[in-house]
Amino acid sequence: MNAEIVSVGTELLMGQITNTDAQFLSRELSELGVNVYAHSVVGDNAGRLRTALDIALARADIVITTGGLGPTMDDITKETIAEHWGLPMAPDQPTLDRIESYFRSRGRQMSPNNLKQALFPEGAVILPNPHGTAPGCILEKDGKTIIVLPGPPREMKPMFMESVRPYLMERSGYVLTSVVLKATGIGESDAEYRIRDIVEEQTNPTIAPYAAPGDLTLRITARTARGEDPKALLMPVAAAIRERLGDYIYSESGQSLPEAVVEMLAARGRTLSAAESCTGGMLCSMIVDVPGASRVFTEGFVTYSNEAKTARLGVPADILARHGAVSEETAGAMARGLRQRSGTDYAAAITGIAGPTGGCADKPVGLIYIAVDSERGLTVEKATLRTQRDYNRTMACQIALRMVREALVRDQDAEA
Amino acid sequence: MNAEIVSVGTELLMGQITNTDAQFLSRELSELGVNVYAHSVVGDNAGRLRTALDIALARADIVITTGGLGPTMDDITKETIAEHWGLPMAPDQPTLDRIESYFRSRGRQMSPNNLKQALFPEGAVILPNPHGTAPGCILEKDGKTIIVLPGPPREMKPMFMESVRPYLMERSGYVLTSVVLKATGIGESDAEYRIRDIVEEQTNPTIAPYAAPGDLTLRITARTARGEDPKALLMPVAAAIRERLGDYIYSESGQSLPEAVVEMLAARGRTLSAAESCTGGMLCSMIVDVPGASRVFTEGFVTYSNEAKTARLGVPADILARHGAVSEETAGAMARGLRQRSGTDYAAAITGIAGPTGGCADKPVGLIYIAVDSERGLTVEKATLRTQRDYNRTMACQIALRMVREALVRDQDAEA
Repeated sequence: MNAEIVSVGTELLMGQITNTDAQFLSRELSELGVNVYAHSVVGDNAGRLRTALDIALARADIVITTGGLGPTMDDITKETIAEHWGLPMAPDQPTLDRIESYFRSRGRQMSPNNLKQALFPEGAVILPNPHGTAPGCILEKDGKTIIVLPGPPREMKPMFMESVRPYLMERSGYVLTSVVLKATGIGESDAEYRIRDIVEEQTNPTIAPYAAPGDLTLRITARTARGEDPKALLMPVAAAIRERLGDYIYSESGQSLPEAVVEMLAARGRTLSAAESCTGGMLCSMIVDVPGASRVFTEGFVTYSNEAKTARLGVPADILARHGAVSEETAGAMARGLRQRSGTDYAAAITGIAGPTGGCADKPVGLIYIAVDSERGLTVEKATLRTQRDYNRTMACQIALRMVREALVRDQDAEA
Repeated sequence: MNAEIVSVGTELLMGQITNTDAQFLSRELSELGVNVYAHSVVGDNAGRLRTALDIALARADIVITTGGLGPTMDDITKETIAEHWGLPMAPDQPTLDRIESYFRSRGRQMSPNNLKQALFPEGAVILPNPHGTAPGCILEKDGKTIIVLPGPPREMKPMFMESVRPYLMERSGYVLTSVVLKATGIGESDAEYRIRDIVEEQTNPTIAPYAAPGDLTLRITARTARGEDPKALLMPVAAAIRERLGDYIYSESGQSLPEAVVEMLAARGRTLSAAESCTGGMLCSMIVDVPGASRVFTEGFVTYSNEAKTARLGVPADILARHGAVSEETAGAMARGLRQRSGTDYAAAITGIAGPTGGCADKPVGLIYIAVDSERGLTVEKATLRTQRDYNRTMACQIALRMVREALVRDQDAEA
């Protein structure tokens, strides 16, 4: 089965938005075993959309369109497809009822152009849109399928997951089940090298890696017949990867590193605080971004100046004078001072030169020290990263979170 | 003149990366007055690339390709174009020399496949690549133009700006000059409403708005003949917009709001500190992200718990008990306490319910208080935002920065 994605919207051709819909659909289709051979983008223009449909239907089994389902004159996707396949447009009563009640409940008059959203090419299977007013639809004719989805990602993604994915799985006759392993502290190429033979030997399950700074996702996906147990395929492969990557794996449920650390802290009833210099609040922000972080994270300090490091964290002025703000000694003193003052079980501190400027021969851009203090002692790591400020800051935060996790594991082992 | 963008790369069709190249090129071409009628994406497959080129060349004057210029067997863009137009591939000596010296300087043997990057369809104008090893090129034949660019955005974007943009301007015979106005504190639709007649009256200069949470960019672009002064076109329109949007405009040089605030503080020799609850360090991070922020930003506190608000900022426990952590009173006490303790001229504080959960009838998700304190007094604003956590946090930080800016302007006026 192969598919082609046709995105409709002049705003895409003007460069006002990025086509994230095409990426999302491509990744999902690839996991479903559907080959995507092309994307195309056209504006809100019936002639050019017809040409794009012609080209796509000539070579793909399934054409997925995104966009052009709204109430305005510019929104022409359904109408153009209906014309293309010689189908009349007909109202869908449930959709009509929902749109009318939407306006009634708000005491507003429904303008006639809103009726447009309830009209579909005859024979279409309607896909409900719980996040917007424009439903999608599926059309089949002469062995070809057109799946019509809205453009806004917050409407398109849930519609795909809730309606289209099950449809495609039903049609293919098999079921896909994934296990997601997350790893940190190991580079993508190192990880790939370690598991290369496992990846190459496998066709079912498949193993797909996605890398971000300090974070590696491995999605293991098994394809099974309905009723067959996917665990029999997934578990041996997951176990083999676990054996190779060992302690680098921090989650087997798809959590992010901040989520995993917050959950571990909460499960053990421990608390965390953070002190940041070059990352300037990014570590705190990543932790606070986890819903429920307030159970374990009490406070953070952005000690950007030397004075703040001394006043807020008690870093001795002579350590700053002798070793500099970017040093193992300062990072350690920040974490120790922070833990004393905040009274948390764990304290993480970061100091470094994020770049792009501010480095010297002695202390180059990308030199960052990360420290974690707990009752059982202090650990400081030195990282020599890159010249890109964003990468360095993100990476330093990931290292700090990994070190907190390692301290939690170590402390638990020591207590056991 | 119209153009079509053909992106080459199986990683795009697998959904591993988003096609940001197409967005960047579309926006730039649109500003240059080149109409983009379609994008297409194909994998690293000669047959499908040929088809895509056929389709694109049939309807566009200019076809821009991105990707497929690397040294591996998979990289087939130049070869496929050469075959398509019946041109032999020939080595470009300067490129060959550069690649050879690159390997020599590293004491490494050049593998033969690296030669591939120095081969171009005969007659190509070579576009240097200062950020990578694969140059691009421009080919012209029978009134059609193909512009071949690398895929990685960090190589493609500078190559477009430095080589392709001047080529297209030269070809069109005119020069484009832009003025960028940045505004905050006004919604996109409100701003558009206020300047609608100016936008509609204009064809030269054109006015293009780009909206982000709490931040509106208006790019005014004039098209002039070579030697003609663009100021005569730009200045009256900029003045008219300035009159309508007045104090909402915070920069006329394209700065971000954090950059503008850091620059204003530095110019006046003033300092800033920040205290954050629901934004969890994001405001500090946005400020620290500005190179040179250390001149004006000394420290920040992430006071996530009530205890931290009292211990670090001196928020009276009875204010927290009476009014709650999310209240005008607490926000004000945070900013006042912060300024006293940090000794900075300005202090900004944020407390609220970022969501998606944690709200109640009384204090719904999206309710956020932002306070700025200075020698001349305290200002607190209440914002009722949305249900999306990311949006709310970004918006709250933008409001805080706008309020610091307003305080700076007000204090300067008062001193004058």
